[in-house]
This record gives sequence, structure tokens and C-alpha cells, in this order.
Amino acid sequence: MSFSVAVSGASGYAGGEVLRLLASHPDVTIGAITAHSNAGSLLGELQPHLHSLAGRELSDTTVENLAGHDVVFLALPHGASAEIAAQLPEDTLVIDAGADHRLEDPLAWEKFYGSAHAGTWPYGLPELPGHRERLRNARRIAVPGCYPTSSLLALAPGFAAGLLEHDDVVIVSASGTSGAGKSAKVNLLGSEVMGGMNPYGVGGGHRHTPEIEQGLSAAAGGQVTVSFTPTLAPMSRGILTTATAKARPGASATALAHELREAWAAAYADEPFVHLLPEGRWPHTKAVLGSNHAVMQLAFDAHSGRVIVSCAIDNLAKGTAGGAIQSMNIALGLEETAGLTHQGVAP
Amino acid sequence: MSFSVAVSGASGYAGGEVLRLLASHPDVTIGAITAHSNAGSLLGELQPHLHSLAGRELSDTTVENLAGHDVVFLALPHGASAEIAAQLPEDTLVIDAGADHRLEDPLAWEKFYGSAHAGTWPYGLPELPGHRERLRNARRIAVPGCYPTSSLLALAPGFAAGLLEHDDVVIVSASGTSGAGKSAKVNLLGSEVMGGMNPYGVGGGHRHTPEIEQGLSAAAGGQVTVSFTPTLAPMSRGILTTATAKARPGASATALAHELREAWAAAYADEPFVHLLPEGRWPHTKAVLGSNHAVMQLAFDAHSGRVIVSCAIDNLAKGTAGGAIQSMNIALGLEETAGLTHQGVAP
Amino acid sequence: MSFSVAVSGASGYAGGEVLRLLASHPDVTIGAITAHSNAGSLLGELQPHLHSLAGRELSDTTVENLAGHDVVFLALPHGASAEIAAQLPEDTLVIDAGADHRLEDPLAWEKFYGSAHAGTWPYGLPELPGHRERLRNARRIAVPGCYPTSSLLALAPGFAAGLLEHDDVVIVSASGTSGAGKSAKVNLLGSEVMGGMNPYGVGGGHRHTPEIEQGLSAAAGGQVTVSFTPTLAPMSRGILTTATAKARPGASATALAHELREAWAAAYADEPFVHLLPEGRWPHTKAVLGSNHAVMQLAFDAHSGRVIVSCAIDNLAKGTAGGAIQSMNIALGLEETAGLTHQGVAP
Amino acid sequence: MSFSVAVSGASGYAGGEVLRLLASHPDVTIGAITAHSNAGSLLGELQPHLHSLAGRELSDTTVENLAGHDVVFLALPHGASAEIAAQLPEDTLVIDAGADHRLEDPLAWEKFYGSAHAGTWPYGLPELPGHRERLRNARRIAVPGCYPTSSLLALAPGFAAGLLEHDDVVIVSASGTSGAGKSAKVNLLGSEVMGGMNPYGVGGGHRHTPEIEQGLSAAAGGQVTVSFTPTLAPMSRGILTTATAKARPGASATALAHELREAWAAAYADEPFVHLLPEGRWPHTKAVLGSNHAVMQLAFDAHSGRVIVSCAIDNLAKGTAGGAIQSMNIALGLEETAGLTHQGVAP
Repeated sequence: MSFSVAVSGASGYAGGEVLRLLASHPDVTIGAITAHSNAGSLLGELQPHLHSLAGRELSDTTVENLAGHDVVFLALPHGASAEIAAQLPEDTLVIDAGADHRLEDPLAWEKFYGSAHAGTWPYGLPELPGHRERLRNARRIAVPGCYPTSSLLALAPGFAAGLLEHDDVVIVSASGTSGAGKSAKVNLLGSEVMGGMNPYGVGGGHRHTPEIEQGLSAAAGGQVTVSFTPTLAPMSRGILTTATAKARPGASATALAHELREAWAAAYADEPFVHLLPEGRWPHTKAVLGSNHAVMQLAFDAHSGRVIVSCAIDNLAKGTAGGAIQSMNIALGLEETAGLTHQGVAP
Repeated sequence: MSFSVAVSGASGYAGGEVLRLLASHPDVTIGAITAHSNAGSLLGELQPHLHSLAGRELSDTTVENLAGHDVVFLALPHGASAEIAAQLPEDTLVIDAGADHRLEDPLAWEKFYGSAHAGTWPYGLPELPGHRERLRNARRIAVPGCYPTSSLLALAPGFAAGLLEHDDVVIVSASGTSGAGKSAKVNLLGSEVMGGMNPYGVGGGHRHTPEIEQGLSAAAGGQVTVSFTPTLAPMSRGILTTATAKARPGASATALAHELREAWAAAYADEPFVHLLPEGRWPHTKAVLGSNHAVMQLAFDAHSGRVIVSCAIDNLAKGTAGGAIQSMNIALGLEETAGLTHQGVAP
Repeated sequence: MSFSVAVSGASGYAGGEVLRLLASHPDVTIGAITAHSNAGSLLGELQPHLHSLAGRELSDTTVENLAGHDVVFLALPHGASAEIAAQLPEDTLVIDAGADHRLEDPLAWEKFYGSAHAGTWPYGLPELPGHRERLRNARRIAVPGCYPTSSLLALAPGFAAGLLEHDDVVIVSASGTSGAGKSAKVNLLGSEVMGGMNPYGVGGGHRHTPEIEQGLSAAAGGQVTVSFTPTLAPMSRGILTTATAKARPGASATALAHELREAWAAAYADEPFVHLLPEGRWPHTKAVLGSNHAVMQLAFDAHSGRVIVSCAIDNLAKGTAGGAIQSMNIALGLEETAGLTHQGVAP
Repeated sequence: MSFSVAVSGASGYAGGEVLRLLASHPDVTIGAITAHSNAGSLLGELQPHLHSLAGRELSDTTVENLAGHDVVFLALPHGASAEIAAQLPEDTLVIDAGADHRLEDPLAWEKFYGSAHAGTWPYGLPELPGHRERLRNARRIAVPGCYPTSSLLALAPGFAAGLLEHDDVVIVSASGTSGAGKSAKVNLLGSEVMGGMNPYGVGGGHRHTPEIEQGLSAAAGGQVTVSFTPTLAPMSRGILTTATAKARPGASATALAHELREAWAAAYADEPFVHLLPEGRWPHTKAVLGSNHAVMQLAFDAHSGRVIVSCAIDNLAKGTAGGAIQSMNIALGLEETAGLTHQGVAP
């Protein structure tokens, strides 16, 4: 049996990545491929790397064109996805790669996005405690942001195990430029970004803060406070997150270091996509490029009392499209790794 | 049925790419993975992007370890592969990613490599006229060099159609740094290569000249002379080849332009991996990154009388490991695209 | 004595580079700094690397604002510069970094630019035979294009010495993305250009062909025909030009190689900015980054009968702003190297 | 009057940058240029960007060759510099770009470097409170590490003003690869670093922790504890440091934000090289590339109670060679900005 899938926002980076991964998914058939201003174009003009779909024409992003599929991926600006999603049948699996349905707290939404809250959907990060179950048979899924994906994977095990202080998490992430989207802006020109780094979207960064706090607080069973700073790195893809939190006082530094390692190891022991690296090896975003994997390492710094976790993902894969398809697989009852068995592409 | 495959040189870039592609090949089982100085290490330490093989231990590159498989990939320095190949059973399919068995002319080999010629094997570029047939049931295959792959794909159709002058081909190629291998050299450090370009391996470039001339001459049915200059570009992967040749005088520039386009279009009409782009679109190496595809565009410049062909491949995929596996598929009677259905990874 | 200088187009890459170099020029005072849509902004917002000028406000690009200076730099889209230049006093030194006044042949201009020809100014490449003299006391100077600068420096000595065939020059250049300007276009986004190469502006490339042919023909004393292909490389700055021409038959390959080397060595022996590297060393664009230097190497390939010259410049420095200031120095009777003594910035 | 200067370690990145900057310094004459394994080579072979010094031959790094100059720069591995420095005359100004003489606490040195402490020299970061005075007439200067330079500039004003808590500083820095030196290592190959990020030298990072704590503690007048994580970014040069500390409780968030901004503004108001950007502008490493400038911005995040400071420097310039020359200028009684008036090179 093959599920029919429609993909909106197909001319952008998130939509393109959804299509790239779906193109080799064994259990789906790609139906409507839609765009806004690029409707009418051939996909080969806009996404020349998608050879098997090069001749497909993009239709308009309308409810009419998206309806009638088993699954609809929304890779649209926030606001737009909520509007369309509300009109799609309830038994269609709608997967929103945008922000509209991620936050549980309407006030947080309104504060950071300045519009009415569209409601909260099951959150597509199955590796968080209790989340995989909520995705089974779901018909609405909110895809986590790419920064929150790496941040939550980095720190959730420690909070779930009660090993971290709640009140002083510091996260600094470096993202490839595709995270800033495909719109033509001078500050994103190759000439501007190659060879340099800068903090970016401090506003946009703040928007991810409530999402990160929401996920960590759920894992911790209490309010967690986060200072989050995103930076832009001269690479197309990839997120390297450095996440630190204070460890709760333990019997001894050695015992604490051991306990911490055990917590992360146990949390991800059975996960197909999230890997705590063997001691001595540190993550590199190139090791996950193009794949749905996340790799991480942690260290306990007894001097500062902080746990430092370094986590690498591909922002477009595990951070967006890969995570979305993983959640789709769970919701549809497919093998969780279906269509996601790619290795990383390196060097 | 599954064929057992051994891969030597697994710690390098070519060997790593063979493994990356084989890991998702439906018809093979990966047996011995071997290396030289890295024998005894886990693959995860050396190729951290190959998640599904991370726990595999590398054995020594010896005849004993490689024998007993249906297929053996040799990704070794030239000289080393010939020596090992000579000791492997005749009914083993041996695929040499190195240079030892590419050249037909022993004198050319001796001139450019300074050692005795090891013999000539069927040349693994099935898109060249007559080559696919020679690969069927072959048990020894020489994988083309990455520069020759892009150069031959770029110009062979014109020579085969009798449309190009034989005596003044000029080719300038830009390659990503992975083409220079994984050995620690100061001139290949990131600090040295990022943000700049330079000609490189003019000596190494010359070594590819006889291979390019051999292929074009065979297509032309007469000796073709080539001036070839390779350059090193600040990217990990990809080759962009600009190949030009004088067009033979035609009825008119317009007629000639049409005739030229038809020749290329016809040559690649049925090829699964080689694509003449629609007019107006030019190739980009990012559109083939990680995939076995080659994309190209041609233009006839009536002013200079030259045909200019721009061809993009991934040097490690179609230029090495992908082409090797495509040839393996043909030799084993498998679907030619088996294990090679990846889209490009972009952006 | 200090000359007052006005700079238009100050928000772009060429204008910014003119300002960067003028800021440390011992004999000039920077007067009006003008822009079009960015008039009213502070320079520090648009060119944050120009620390000593950060507080300067940009005025409108009008004749009024530019007049009254000893020197006016025009870094404007073609068409715009001709219009403004025509209104500036005859005794003002006007230096046009745009294309309007480069070509001598009005028909060539009209064919490639589709507008009326604005006239021809002394061409600011003093290293070409006879050009330095024409620049002395000039009050109008056309700055060469960046591709022509590298192409003409690469091949002019051979044509001037009568050692090269006129009818089959092939040039392939790789340029950093700043050559494509600072306008927001999707194909120039960092995500699109990092990690890949593509041919670009084949139309724009053609526009440089008549300029290259004009310069080489003047050196050769007869019409030279050029096939020129530009490509875009993943770096902010730099041009690496590979230029080849057929050598005229000589007594022997060895004698010819010697004669060729002597021609280039003699041509640049006394040049402060153009360097034929010692044999065995090849140019790297990183060795000239930020500086007004050009470095090159040549080889005679007896096999193909072609001379191959590899030439590296910084497209914004020697290729635009540096060359412009060098010409200004000559025109004003200053030391030719004044303000241009920067080393390259590497790594 | 011109001071004679000798530079050791001239084949490396730090030594090359010292030479680049000295080559345009108005008050010095470059004397001996020395290296270890590269002695006997021409500088042009090793540092092809240093055009004006291309013909200079490197001599051996010996006391004999370095003595007899007014100033000696040591750009050597730690250990080596202490040994040579001890043998140079007391009235020679010795500037050590290595780590040997930075730390005040012998126990810290022994713990992190595993050897006997060589003693403490005046610390060459004149922007720190009280440091400029100590450099006047100094004859021994320890050049700060590049990470500490950016970290101390980022946070010292807040500690000096008593506005920050001492016990929980978190710093995450991204550095270009030149910070890892010019030695041939596989993990620093272009193919490995382009397109990705990874934490690096967590050991090496730790080595900078005591240096950062030493400087911040001095500013704070009490022990400051730091968690520091360095990462490697795909660029040749530049450091972007994200430094955060808890603000001491203030009257109100608004008042505190104002007070914080005033502290930084006052600290750097008269500094020629350190710039607190106008509100709304964030630093970019490209804005300081090749220059001795440091640019920074700060924000008070009332939500987390943390001050976040983003600081960009060029690791080789302000972070090493530029800072060294600035200190030299102070020690010799020259204009502090002499030879350091370069703008940044962008884009």
C-alpha cells in the first residue's frame, strides 16, 4: 500500500528537502507539489537536484490542490499554514513544518508572533519522553523548529533524569544559512556570509526560546529557563548546538559524571537516529549532512559545575524534513525509519 | 540473492563513498572492510557519517581478507591495486577505482606513471559508445578518473557524431578538494583552500590527459589532442568541467547549433544518469552533490567557432564510487540504477 | 598636497573597496560619499568594515554632490555613469569603474549592451603596452572589467612579442561572488553558492569578450578571437583565470618554451604589481586577496602546442578599485603605488 | 627613527601575520626572519601573499639570529619561546605570541600544560583596566590567546563595573581554522572542515579557561568561574564569541539594561580598536577581517537574567599579531595605532 502525499512550499528549502526524502520513500506516492509565486514552473527549474521529479509542474498552494491526499506537508510561512490546515479534512494527516502549532501556551504565541494562536498539535520529536506515543495515529503534527530539535535532544535526558538545575540553561547554536530560508536578502548573499560568522535573528532566536523552554520544562516536570543565542555559520546546512546546564549536586564529580553519561546513554540506547558518541569522539555536522541522524557528546565540567552537551544535526533533515517524515511514519504505522536510511554525505 | 562485497581503502574518501552507496544498495551484503595503517580501527572513528556501519572493524588490506567475496572494490594508491588484483580469483569481480588499468597504451602509462603497465581492463563509463556492452559479465573493471568522467561525458557525443575538430580540445576543470584525497598536506588545509582557487597538480592533470585523449579518440575514430588544466575550488565535492572544441564547418551557424544539440540530446536521451539540461539552464555542481547524476549544457559560439560544454558531476559519486557501482550493476546483471537512486543533496 | 575625492556607489562592493583603499591613501582626502537608495544612511551600517569612515553619511548620487572634487569615482550601473560623467567639469579626474567607456568600437557596445555608445576613455590597465603613457594627465579613465584585467595581463605579453596565434584563444575564469554584485538575488544566496560551482552570466561573460579581444588585438597588432567562459566559485573574492593560446611554431619546443618565458618575464620585470612567479610556483587567489597584486605562471604544453597561463587577482582590488586607484595615481602624477602597498591577506 | 625587528616562526600563520602587519609599519625595519624546519627557504615560497618580502631568506630560529634587534617576536610552540626568551638580552623587547608567559598562577600553568612555569610577563591587552600602563616601557610582553582576547574584551567592562555575578560565566566561541595552526592534520583538511562545524580542542579550550578566568577575575576583583567551549567554523579567520554572565539584580530591567550599556560604552569610548556598535547592529567577523579592530554588541535578557555579549575579532590580527604590535607600539612609545590602520577587508 502506498500513501499519497502532497507537498506545499515546494520551491523553498524545507519543501525541497521533504521532496528529496519522499522521492526515495518506499511507502508513499508524491501527488500535488505546490508553490505560491512559482506555481506553473517545473520543479527542475527550482530544485535542480531533484532529478526524478524534474518534470513535475508546481500547482498553486490551495486547499483544493492539497486535499484528497492521505498526507499533506505544509512548508509555509507561519500564519499561512494554520489557515490552510483548518480547511483540510480531519482524517488527512497534516504535517506542519512551520511554527503555527508548536506552542502550547497561547500567551507565549501571541507575545512572540503577534497574532492569534492557532492551537497546539502533537509535537513531532518522538525521542522526547512520551512523545512517540502521542504521534501514533495523530492526524495533525507540528514539526519542531530546527534549533529546538537540537537543543531538546541535547538536554532533555538530563532534565528527565532530574540531574540538571532548572534555572540557568545557556544554549548557543550555529546554523547553516539554509535555516534562514531562500528569500533574496543582501545579508544572506554568498559574498556576505562566506568566510565569516555573526549572531543572527536575535529576534528569531527569541522565538525559539519558548519552544525550547516548553520542551525542557515538560521533561523536567517544572519550569526551565533558557538563554538562547543563534549564530549564522558559513555553510549551507547543519546546526551545531552547544547546550549547557548546571548539574545538581551529586555525591562526587566522578559519580556525577558517570550518572550523567548513563542518563543520556539510556535515553538514546534504542533510538535509531540519535546517537551519544563513544567517549572521546565529538560530533561534526558533516557526519549528519543529508541524513536524519543526530550525534552528540557530553562532558561534565566539575570546575564550573556545568554539563556541556554538543549536538549536531542537519537543520533541513532531522531539523525539519527528516523529522517530519519520521513523525509521519509513526502516525501512519509505518516502519519509523522508512525512507530515512540515508547515511550522511561526507566529506 | 545478495552479492558479497569487500571494500579496500575504506579509510579514504573514495572507499568511504563506495561504502556510503553500498550501504543502501538492495542487492549487496558488505563483507570485509579493509585499510592499511588504520586496520584495527572502527569505521565510526574514520567515517563518522556512515552510521549503519559505525561498529564495523577494519581489517588489513590483504588478498586473504579480500578474497572469498563476489565483488572486490580497490580504492588504493596506483601500483597497490594492480598487485592485489593479480592475486584475486578470476571469477571475482574486481573493480579498481585507481588508475592502474585505465590506459590502453603501455607507453603512455610508463611515460606518465613511471612503472610497468599492469594491463587494460574494461573502462567503467557505460555512457560512452560501445562501453556498456563491454561491461556486461566483465570480471575486471577500471573505474575512470573523475576529471576524465566529466570531460568524456562532455565531449564524446560531438566526436562520435563527427561534428568536432580533432586537434584542439581545451578543457579546464574545477574540482572540490576531496579529489586530492585525505592525506594530511599543508596545501590542502582548510585555512589554505577556503576562500581561494589555484591550479593544482599540473603534473596530476597531465596524468589525466592521456586518459581523456584515449576516450575521445575512441569516440572520434581518430587521434584527438587535448589541453587539460585542473584547478582546485573551495568546496569539498564536485567537478565543474568547461570543455571546448572547434566545430567542423557546417551549413550555417544556426544549422550547426541545431545539429550539435541534437547529437548530445540523442546520446543521452535514454541515459538514467546523464542529463542535457533544457536550453537556458546551466549546470551547478550542487545539483548533483551526493548523487550519481551528471548534468550538462552546451552552447555553440559562432564567433569563435567553438562548442562550449559545461558539465557538473560529484567527483566522488559519478566521478568515482557511483560510477563504480553503476558498472558493477551492469557486470552483475542487476538493474543499472540499483543503489544509485539518490537525489542530489541541496542546498 | 592632498587631492579631494568623491566616491559614488558607496553602498556596493566596488564603491566599498574604493573607499577601503582610499582610506589609507596618503595623498587624498575623502569628500562626498554617495549612494542611490541608501542615501541618508551612515556608511557604518552598509560597510561595517570601514571603521574609520563609519560615521560618514551617504549623500545622493547627483552631479551637485560629486562636483567640486579633484577626483570622482563612479561605481555605478552602466548607463548611469555615462550620464553623470557628461555633466562633470572637464578638469575633474573622472574614473569610471563601470563599463560605459571601455570599448572603442561603438558597434560592439551597441551589440552587447543595447544602448548608444558613450565614447571611449583611456583604459586603466597601465601594464599593457603603451597604456601607462596614455593615463598620464588623463582626466577621464575607464577602469577595465575584472575578467579582462586578468585575461589581458595573462596573455598580452605573448601577443605583443608575436609568439601567439591570433585566432584561437580560450579563456576560462573562476570568480568569487562579489563580482556579481551586492544585489539580492536567490542564485547568489550563500546557501546556493557555498559548496558548489556553476558557469554564470554566459551573457555577462560575452560582454567581456569584446573588451578582452580589444586589448589582445591591440597588443597583437591584429584581430584576436577569444572564447571566454566565466564561472562562479564559492568564495567572496578573487579571480583565477586560465588562459590558453596556440604558440606560433618555433625552432624547437625547448627554445619556444624559453622564448615564451622570456617574453612574460621582460614584460613584467619592472611592474610593481604584476609578478611572473618563479618556475614551479603556481598562483593562488589567496596570495593576492585584498591587494593590488597579480600573480601568474605560464607553461608551454608541447603536446597540444598551447601556452597555458594561470593568473590570479583580487577582482575587487586589482580587478576594480585597486586598478582604478593605480590609474588615478598615474593621472595625478603621484607615486604609482601610493595607497596600494597592502600585502595580500592570508590565510 | 626605525626599530629593528626580528620575527621567529615566520612560516606559520601567526608569524606570517606579524610580518604582514610589520611590512607596512612606518617605524620598524624587518631584520631576521626565522623558522625551524623551513630555514633556508625563501619567504615567497611559504607566505606567497607577502609580496614585498618574497625574496627574503629564512634563517634558523636561534638566539644568535634573533639577538641584536630592538624587538623580537616569538611565534613558537609553547616551551620553545620560554627557552629562547631566557637567553635574549634584557633590554630587548621580547613579544611572545605563545602561551608560556600568560598565566600568573604557576599551579594553573602546570596543571594545564604539564611543565614548569616560565614566569609571568605583562599581558598585552591594553584595553583591560590598568593594563596599558603596565605595557609602557615593558621589555617582555605576553600576547593573549585569541579566545581570551575576545572573551575578555566581551566581559571585562561588566565585571569592572561590578554589574555581573562572578560565578557562572558561559562562553562559546567559534573560530576560523587558522587558529588551529598550519600543521598538516587530517581533521583540518579543507575537505573535512568546509561545510561543517564541530567543537574542537576541548582540551585546548580548557587551556584557555584559566587565562580567561585570570583576566576576568582581575577586572572583577574576585574569583570568576567560566565554562568555555570553543568550536571550529568553516572559515580561515575570525572569532565570534558569545559570552554571557548573570547580571547582578538591579532596580529594574530597564534601568539595568541602561546601566550595562553605559558600562561598556564608557570602557571603550576612547579605544581606537574596540567598538561597541550602535544599538541594533550586531558584529560580523567579516567586518574586522585583516584588521586590528574588535566589534561587539550586548543585550540584557531580562527573561534569563543574563547579559549576552557578542564580540568579533580577527583571530590572527587583534587576536594575535595585531594585538602584539599594538602592545609593541605602547612599549616603544610609538603611536598606539602605528601600522594598524588597516580597515577590514570585506566582503
